[in-house]
Amino acid sequence: MIDQAFCPVFEAIELLQEKWVLHIVRALLPGPAGFNELSRRVGGVNPATLAQRLERLAELGVVSREVHSLMPPRTSYALTQAGVELQSVIEAIDAWGRRHIADPAPLRSAAS
Amino acid sequence: MIDQAFCPVFEAIELLQEKWVLHIVRALLPGPAGFNELSRRVGGVNPATLAQRLERLAELGVVSREVHSLMPPRTSYALTQAGVELQSVIEAIDAWGRRHIADPAPLRSAAS
Repeated sequence: MIDQAFCPVFEAIELLQEKWVLHIVRALLPGPAGFNELSRRVGGVNPATLAQRLERLAELGVVSREVHSLMPPRTSYALTQAGVELQSVIEAIDAWGRRHIADPAPLRSAAS
Repeated sequence: MIDQAFCPVFEAIELLQEKWVLHIVRALLPGPAGFNELSRRVGGVNPATLAQRLERLAELGVVSREVHSLMPPRTSYALTQAGVELQSVIEAIDAWGRRHIADPAPLRSAAS
């Protein structure tokens, strides 16, 4: 089923299943953000992990970094064209999640 | 950006970023498979991890299990309707991967 040779779809899944990557892409879709703002948008990621993922996404050409000032250090992060095109993936997940992932809270209270 | 309250999209990303989940869904899209066949289709997953992920996907109603015989143990796994609807996510990843993930091998040989 999976080619032993290089398969771009397998590799894309490998990238997108890295913890926080999809959350980061989703958080950047509305527009660029500085590190702290991005961290807030993503919610719950620790700063070291976020920095590491942003570095990897920049290497892969999914995210771009713009340094506004060195002192104090100010950098903003944005999706590249390749990153923006992940919107189709996020939208498919969005539609699926709204359809199939139920809020467990009402179930718990309905069980009384 | 991310709701503090329950967000089905955040939860869907949490599920799909679990290592191997997207690979398993992709491998089941062509049709049901026994454990060994599925393991072969997914490629590289260890059996304990595959079993654990299948259990979680079954709990969430994404995968169904059918026991054909107990001795020898024979079980097949299939996508439920909710699982089949993840095809839109896999297709979006497929299209993006083919467009944006390059095979590193030709680059290396072209560098000579």
